[in-house]
Amino acid sequence: MTRRTLIETKILHVERPFVLESGKKLDSIDIAYETYGELSKDRDNVILIEHALSGDAHAAFYHEGERKPGWWDNMIGPGKAFDTERYFVVCSNILGGCRGTTGPSSINKATARPYGLDFPSVNIRDITDAQRLLLSHLGIEKILCVAGGSMGGMQALQFVCDYPENTGSFICIASALKHSAQQIAFNEVGRRAIMADPRWNGGNYYGDVPPKGGLSVARMIGHITYLSEEMLQKRFGREKKMPGNKNIFRPSFEVEHYLDYQGISFVRRFDANSYLYITNAMDDFDLVASLASRQRSPRDEGRTRGTGIKKMDHVKGLVITFSSDWLYPPSQGRDIAKFFRSLDAGVSYTEIDSDHGHDSFLTDVKTQSELVEGFLKSLMA
Amino acid sequence: MTRRTLIETKILHVERPFVLESGKKLDSIDIAYETYGELSKDRDNVILIEHALSGDAHAAFYHEGERKPGWWDNMIGPGKAFDTERYFVVCSNILGGCRGTTGPSSINKATARPYGLDFPSVNIRDITDAQRLLLSHLGIEKILCVAGGSMGGMQALQFVCDYPENTGSFICIASALKHSAQQIAFNEVGRRAIMADPRWNGGNYYGDVPPKGGLSVARMIGHITYLSEEMLQKRFGREKKMPGNKNIFRPSFEVEHYLDYQGISFVRRFDANSYLYITNAMDDFDLVASLASRQRSPRDEGRTRGTGIKKMDHVKGLVITFSSDWLYPPSQGRDIAKFFRSLDAGVSYTEIDSDHGHDSFLTDVKTQSELVEGFLKSLMA
Repeated sequence: MTRRTLIETKILHVERPFVLESGKKLDSIDIAYETYGELSKDRDNVILIEHALSGDAHAAFYHEGERKPGWWDNMIGPGKAFDTERYFVVCSNILGGCRGTTGPSSINKATARPYGLDFPSVNIRDITDAQRLLLSHLGIEKILCVAGGSMGGMQALQFVCDYPENTGSFICIASALKHSAQQIAFNEVGRRAIMADPRWNGGNYYGDVPPKGGLSVARMIGHITYLSEEMLQKRFGREKKMPGNKNIFRPSFEVEHYLDYQGISFVRRFDANSYLYITNAMDDFDLVASLASRQRSPRDEGRTRGTGIKKMDHVKGLVITFSSDWLYPPSQGRDIAKFFRSLDAGVSYTEIDSDHGHDSFLTDVKTQSELVEGFLKSLMA
Repeated sequence: MTRRTLIETKILHVERPFVLESGKKLDSIDIAYETYGELSKDRDNVILIEHALSGDAHAAFYHEGERKPGWWDNMIGPGKAFDTERYFVVCSNILGGCRGTTGPSSINKATARPYGLDFPSVNIRDITDAQRLLLSHLGIEKILCVAGGSMGGMQALQFVCDYPENTGSFICIASALKHSAQQIAFNEVGRRAIMADPRWNGGNYYGDVPPKGGLSVARMIGHITYLSEEMLQKRFGREKKMPGNKNIFRPSFEVEHYLDYQGISFVRRFDANSYLYITNAMDDFDLVASLASRQRSPRDEGRTRGTGIKKMDHVKGLVITFSSDWLYPPSQGRDIAKFFRSLDAGVSYTEIDSDHGHDSFLTDVKTQSELVEGFLKSLMA
């Protein structure tokens, strides 16, 4: 076994109001983050990594005492696609999350109790703006690349559109310019499952038993959509684990056990209200519409932002999709490439042949690694 | 408006034990059924209609005082595909259901209370065997055709395989020889949603508030899988019904309202335990395996049944799939045709171009009607 590089999640406390695009504000926010590699003298080797719905700031390396590394450790590290011997990689937990950054489970200083549903609605732009604060804190003005998969891809697109002067490139994997009715529908059923759990109690369950049942059902629905039909079939088929099960409705098929496990393990690390807020932000995301309405934003705290849809002929983009991803199908990736090409960005589009479904960006990274590595090297050339 | 033909659901009380394939027995059963058209003098014009998961015996015509006709009224009636001026059409509610036929919400005479989870597990063969009892009661020995979509298709296949001598033909629409891992997974999440609802209470909720939340979530999951991605997009897209909604997690997108409505209206007419039992029967269905194990069945009450997999060169079959049905994809229909051709049945296979997804067999019936009509006429020729 090679050496394990240990890492700790740091917290940036921002002790001034953070105004959301809705006009509402948070009096202060915390941003949980990790960095990997060294910032170059010219500060020109920064890659911002954006996580997906259930991710967090811990993208790579190991936390002390933990057996599993960060969620994208197969992509980030020395000699890997996001090579930490060349690049300074930054990842933070999103606003509205529950893994160190301020969200509905955080303490509302006004009441000294967790926000619950008093937490204001956040959108993808609020999330990327919080990341911008973090970068400032780290003394970073410009980034070489912003990269992410799934909801992380949405953030990457929003980031480069809002700060095109400060962003050299983007990598958007298995994502969309906006959710289709089917994508909204799956998220909605997840939210309904949470809210149908009496323990959810209008979002006021902190200090009590959380809505585990509802959240685990939401996660199970998600997991079906993250995997391809082929892969589920290959991995589980109709194999039974306990054919002689006494309770007829206990899981008996292998695939049922798998989903059950995914649901239960998720509940331990994730907050049900965060699930509501974040899926809501995903469903509301509509990049082209948000750019058109940008001038009307009530918020402008002097941060560098463009207005309206800007040409970005200096920006390079890499859009990746997976052949078996039926949740974020290749057609949505082609739409992303088309839109950015219409802004004169130099966009490469690739559909990777994989049978891992939407989860391919996390689990089947061989070709993805080669593409990302080549793309990043081309930026430095 | 044309005249509305009224119909009533009848109940057959079978006051003797009904032995299930598991060896367990029900001391008596009720079978709810309807018939349309007239039985011919030679009793050779019988069509048995099999309903899907949420269907019932009321397949056609109107119940007094109701605005909506039976669930397949667009297929059954004078001059329609299942032409009630030519055929005698029979449809019954399935065993384990909750619409008049004995199921978990029925009274267990041993305890004078609803069965709940004391109701024994039933499979597709138990369901079709109960139908066989009904046919005997109606004085019917042989049927011209057995037809159904989705789970109804499974029953049609089981019926013709178990009673090939007495079944002239089958029509199997949007169905499968067995469920894939993904189909099991979707059903499992539905079951989990029900069982995660504290009101489910281990299946003992009769006389109390039923697990509405869980059942409506299960139905919502189902509905997403019944519709095609294209159709959801066309019908709802990203349209919002109440953009200024106060509660941020109330449905705002049109598609959310639609699912919400589907969930709520389902809860009014369906029993959560029946949902568990029936989806379980669907997941356990494996036609080829069940035929191979047929001789080992502990049950044989002298009813006419084949043993093992029989050649059926006298049987004609029509297998229909829909291009946009991703839940029961055309590949599963081709597997059905292939299997029955291997038994020398004369099987036609058609993939109908439709964007209505799995629900096409209920909602987009123009081409399906023509196919069924032609197929039935060819049988009489």
